Amino acid sequence: MKAAVWYGRRDVRFQDIPEAPAPGPGEVKLQVGWCGICGTDLHEYAAGPIFTQVNTPHPLSGRMAPLTPGHEFAGTVVEVGPHVTGYKVGDRVSPNPLLRCGECVYCKQGLPQLCTGIGFLGCHSDGGFAEYVTLNVTRGTNPIPVLYKLPDSVSLEAGATVEPLAVAVHAVNRGKLLDGETVVVVGAGPIGICTTMAAKAAGASQIIVLETSAGRRAFAEKSGATAAIDPRSTDAIKAVQDLTNGLGVDCAFECVGAEPTLKLAVDSLRKDGRAVVVGIFEHPAALDWFPIVFFEKTIIGTFAYVNEFDTVIEMLADGRLQPDPMITGRIGVKDIVAGGFEELLNNKEQNVKILVSPS
Amino acid sequence: MKAAVWYGRRDVRFQDIPEAPAPGPGEVKLQVGWCGICGTDLHEYAAGPIFTQVNTPHPLSGRMAPLTPGHEFAGTVVEVGPHVTGYKVGDRVSPNPLLRCGECVYCKQGLPQLCTGIGFLGCHSDGGFAEYVTLNVTRGTNPIPVLYKLPDSVSLEAGATVEPLAVAVHAVNRGKLLDGETVVVVGAGPIGICTTMAAKAAGASQIIVLETSAGRRAFAEKSGATAAIDPRSTDAIKAVQDLTNGLGVDCAFECVGAEPTLKLAVDSLRKDGRAVVVGIFEHPAALDWFPIVFFEKTIIGTFAYVNEFDTVIEMLADGRLQPDPMITGRIGVKDIVAGGFEELLNNKEQNVKILVSPS
Repeated sequence: MKAAVWYGRRDVRFQDIPEAPAPGPGEVKLQVGWCGICGTDLHEYAAGPIFTQVNTPHPLSGRMAPLTPGHEFAGTVVEVGPHVTGYKVGDRVSPNPLLRCGECVYCKQGLPQLCTGIGFLGCHSDGGFAEYVTLNVTRGTNPIPVLYKLPDSVSLEAGATVEPLAVAVHAVNRGKLLDGETVVVVGAGPIGICTTMAAKAAGASQIIVLETSAGRRAFAEKSGATAAIDPRSTDAIKAVQDLTNGLGVDCAFECVGAEPTLKLAVDSLRKDGRAVVVGIFEHPAALDWFPIVFFEKTIIGTFAYVNEFDTVIEMLADGRLQPDPMITGRIGVKDIVAGGFEELLNNKEQNVKILVSPS
Repeated sequence: MKAAVWYGRRDVRFQDIPEAPAPGPGEVKLQVGWCGICGTDLHEYAAGPIFTQVNTPHPLSGRMAPLTPGHEFAGTVVEVGPHVTGYKVGDRVSPNPLLRCGECVYCKQGLPQLCTGIGFLGCHSDGGFAEYVTLNVTRGTNPIPVLYKLPDSVSLEAGATVEPLAVAVHAVNRGKLLDGETVVVVGAGPIGICTTMAAKAAGASQIIVLETSAGRRAFAEKSGATAAIDPRSTDAIKAVQDLTNGLGVDCAFECVGAEPTLKLAVDSLRKDGRAVVVGIFEHPAALDWFPIVFFEKTIIGTFAYVNEFDTVIEMLADGRLQPDPMITGRIGVKDIVAGGFEELLNNKEQNVKILVSPS
């Protein structure tokens, strides 16, 4: 089958590899429709291995690089293994790509994203940049399933955006965002755009996006931002206060992963406000803690998702989430390096999400 | 009347000053029984002015230094001004020392500790290191009152500990501590000791105190700590994990205000754990945010109290809070410099809370 395979940094190869195996007990085989390129895929291409399993097999999958990346995908069930209930050939599904043990204290509390043996499709097992993928859909899936069915009204293209939108809806849920609250989103990369959409769907009265790139500010405005501000040319904190009766916002989302953007998120808050940190940080970041204490601010880490896939699929079906504006490219898997990774690295202003079709 | 008066750094004078005035409309005059020395009083003595109002009068009180410090006190109502209901001569009370405007969005939400015009008795108006004090007990007191009545079973000495215990109970409430959860308290100064007591009263199953001073570790153990560890001689994070099935604690309280102690609090958490920051920071502090995001930790600022005075007084009355072990000195106001401030600065190991009697 046709697939992209990660061998190492700047070494992702389009290859014809053996087709994903027939599903064993507890497994399902999918034909992949579309698979989105995530920031994680891009980082693994440009600077990996970061998360990708190398040298020793991952305990849950028994797999290590070379691996097929890709974890934001949707496809069609083509074969169902023994002991699998609830899925049949022809079902259109989007998988939650978390590998979880099902045994640790976190899995047992229904928090698979905190599993002590966590892995990800595409990093610790073969992912979605291939024609077929065979997944274990039973391990550790009580109470959080692996496969989520798509209704007829949700296309496989839209299904490939369920995963990043679930990250965003989870972030909004972690921030306990209430209807009518005011929001800042710092950074309008793919997760910032998804968070903007999720905040809009959750009823935010204002969504102020802070982003240095003009192209990305334009995407933010198409995605629900009520204001998009360049923090390099404008005093962003003053602008946020001017838009919020001098108070600051109820909830801010840091979607970059750097000290200056973390400061923007925290400083943009009203007293008693919440900053949700979505960005992945490569370096320590300092904050002035006096106002965090004195003004009773809260800072909340958020990672992946719990059970937000169902919510996102419902919101895609009823139109509360409309991912079209963020899909900026559709390519075949043979073009994944030039048309995908390099395009995203070189043309950040013009791109949010590029979808890859493996067939 | 006899009083201590703050004139400047290292310049607090024992003086005979005009007696606090008869109460005007909305005011009550108290005879002070006992007033505790807070870390804030100590900082204002040793390094002030930090919070103390100088140069311009505070908008709510019309007062500025020289001022009588002290905000942790209890006393007896000796005169009630016009338009005051609910209090009578002879009532034994502990005042919430927050000056609040009653008009701002935070006051109207019942969050006087976040009042945009906030002040404190003892810093922005005369406080409790004097025989008498006259207080406005009506401004901004809907819904949070100024004066809290003490039942007969709560002494004026215990009443002088209501304020720091309210800080601790508020911190525990901000951390949403649940019965049976595990706790780390970093720092066993007065607020760390109060937080240890409050966590015990809230039903914590373990309270692990991290403190470098042997004397303070001993106070912590008398106050409810189930373990007291010196983080300089022991790998404190490993010790915490060993005591918690390798997980870390549910909730940590940073009661120092410095980068290394903040790191200890955050690193001691289990995944999905909460760190409550009580300490006042003088400098920015850096954290490694990757594990905060990846393990979904939450960091919560906490300041002062909302309406925890009633809760603390109930807990003092029924014995759930027992402040005696932390009262390490009782002095007259004429000795406040040598027997109070200098004693606390020079003998940290032997002291937690020194109470001052102004009469």
